[in-house]
Amino acid sequence: MRQNLTELEQRAIDAPINLADGHPRQDPTPEQQSITERLPALLAEAQEEDFETLERRAQRRFLDSLGQDAAPVDRGRVFSVYSSSVATMVVGRVLRERHTKVALVHPTFDNIPDLLRVDHHLVPISEEELEAGDLGAVDRAHATALWVTTPNNPTGWLLERDGFVRLAGEAARRGITLCLDTSFRGFDVRAQYDTYDVLERTGVEYVVVEDTGKLWPVAELKLGLLAVSESLSTAVEHALSDVLLTVSPLVLALVEELACDAAAGGYAALHRLVADNRADTFAVVGAMEVAEVVDDHDARVSVSRIRFDSGAEADRARSALRARGVHVLPCNQFHWSDPAQGAPMIRIALARNRETIAEALARFESAVADLSRVHVLGR
Amino acid sequence: MRQNLTELEQRAIDAPINLADGHPRQDPTPEQQSITERLPALLAEAQEEDFETLERRAQRRFLDSLGQDAAPVDRGRVFSVYSSSVATMVVGRVLRERHTKVALVHPTFDNIPDLLRVDHHLVPISEEELEAGDLGAVDRAHATALWVTTPNNPTGWLLERDGFVRLAGEAARRGITLCLDTSFRGFDVRAQYDTYDVLERTGVEYVVVEDTGKLWPVAELKLGLLAVSESLSTAVEHALSDVLLTVSPLVLALVEELACDAAAGGYAALHRLVADNRADTFAVVGAMEVAEVVDDHDARVSVSRIRFDSGAEADRARSALRARGVHVLPCNQFHWSDPAQGAPMIRIALARNRETIAEALARFESAVADLSRVHVLGR
Repeated sequence: MRQNLTELEQRAIDAPINLADGHPRQDPTPEQQSITERLPALLAEAQEEDFETLERRAQRRFLDSLGQDAAPVDRGRVFSVYSSSVATMVVGRVLRERHTKVALVHPTFDNIPDLLRVDHHLVPISEEELEAGDLGAVDRAHATALWVTTPNNPTGWLLERDGFVRLAGEAARRGITLCLDTSFRGFDVRAQYDTYDVLERTGVEYVVVEDTGKLWPVAELKLGLLAVSESLSTAVEHALSDVLLTVSPLVLALVEELACDAAAGGYAALHRLVADNRADTFAVVGAMEVAEVVDDHDARVSVSRIRFDSGAEADRARSALRARGVHVLPCNQFHWSDPAQGAPMIRIALARNRETIAEALARFESAVADLSRVHVLGR
Repeated sequence: MRQNLTELEQRAIDAPINLADGHPRQDPTPEQQSITERLPALLAEAQEEDFETLERRAQRRFLDSLGQDAAPVDRGRVFSVYSSSVATMVVGRVLRERHTKVALVHPTFDNIPDLLRVDHHLVPISEEELEAGDLGAVDRAHATALWVTTPNNPTGWLLERDGFVRLAGEAARRGITLCLDTSFRGFDVRAQYDTYDVLERTGVEYVVVEDTGKLWPVAELKLGLLAVSESLSTAVEHALSDVLLTVSPLVLALVEELACDAAAGGYAALHRLVADNRADTFAVVGAMEVAEVVDDHDARVSVSRIRFDSGAEADRARSALRARGVHVLPCNQFHWSDPAQGAPMIRIALARNRETIAEALARFESAVADLSRVHVLGR
């Protein structure tokens, strides 16, 4: 059994320098710190309050912080789940009753195809095709649902508003169910136009997986949210009730506080951290002959890809990094339909302390220097 | 679509008196209160520590507190999950590759059949058959996995050690995979013999779903644990990695603290609360002509069933209770293969404050009195 990306990430959890997973592992800001210091008070308040009021307010605050004013919270079509992956699994089950084929963005994080593959045949669709908004190929492949991660992981590509309007309209016209995973939305203001306003206007059947889990370093206390069109609401609510009664009221209260803080400056601080870590990566890797950063300089998501001349070189670099205590991901598995495409690249996580990235980059430089020496000697 | 039990429970979350779900809603003990007051410190410590060390220690403490010394924590075969339901869903997926039919205890909480039904044909097996340890019928039905909730919800029935040894041996001989859900084990010391010692000795292929979620009133901060035989370990670990990277280190730290407290008196206090609430229920319902408590006087789980003369009477009582702000569950859905069997019964939750149960029982008395009057007048 080939290891999936999460298995590689699990191996890196306790590594000296873990740049493998895309979870937030930077130190909390002083504001976040003061929120978690109030956990006992938040717990007491959360347990006193009416659950539904608390849940809707937390959902509202989080979605508002990301510009999602038209999300159907008040219409009871936003559901709270333990995580975005559990949400994805449940959506896969619901779609099973209606679809046999799902078109899925290629590349993307491999747990999405792995979770969907259990119930569905998958057809890859590229970011370029999505950008063009032409779903003819999807239709010809008889796919009746389309799954798009936007912003995408690991590429940072996203559907900006115009492209999204085009795509949603096209999906509506063709009767294709549009499924979005927007877990990385919080990193990129260009993804913070009101998605739900567009979705509701087009009348497309939709599912959106939102996620608080990538943003705030609070020990994996997080929510997945599942927002759906009217047409899917009953089925999704029913399927979810097999999995959970409610999420934790404490997590709801925490998300509410963190979302308020994020809107009041927390997101800006997070964006600066990621931008600074990306700039450092560009500076160090840019000076290397054997590697280059793949991202746009203007990329925003909290991961970055580095490309080598070949898969073999990428593997050597990854081993050399690991030998120096730095764990990163290969990119093969992101290219779920054609792993060779990803072979020359590695992915590093940027939601880390500045010093962590600096130290990792120093070790990367030393690893590359050693590899070049071996390479020269070996000739 | 018929409502499942969880949907009925969700409707009751904010009810004046919610005796619907079996989650712990009593006030925390002073000891539990002092643990949650240390949440910020626990968070800081958990984030400092090596994750694997923390995870194994928390698992160990919890399983030790329940007498499960032989659980394969150190052999890396106990996995932490968001909840027991997510664990069940993942097990269903793993078994799908090997089984098409699962024999499942009847009755039991309906989300188990609902989650398993997605991937499997289900065959009911009664508690009496399980007690007798005769799996001939399971074999004849070509079921190759057996799923047992012990202690069972809602009946409180459990496999004590002798019966369990018999059943596990029989499953091993017949090559049947034995799956246990022991979420209610913490309530009943008779279920706290070392299950894993028996399982490992027989060599049966097994899965055990353990759950911290029914025990402690800490805002749904909980873990499901999935413990498996060597033969299933790789497949389960792989399937789980599609769903999560890790559980929350804070939840692990909290579970560790609560398990230590439980072993040092917390379980005893919980058992007293449930026993007292059950005794009150027996006293009040015992004086009624129209209803009786179904449990043994010696039942231990945190739910109790009350039987009426007919399904119609049970429904009337449930409506009358609801009109008085008291939400309980019907029992039809527990009898997943034959709902009519459950129709004359309701289930009430006992993990509640003493005063909550007393008030609910007073309202129950008044409801029954009113119903009798209407009944007499209506003749």
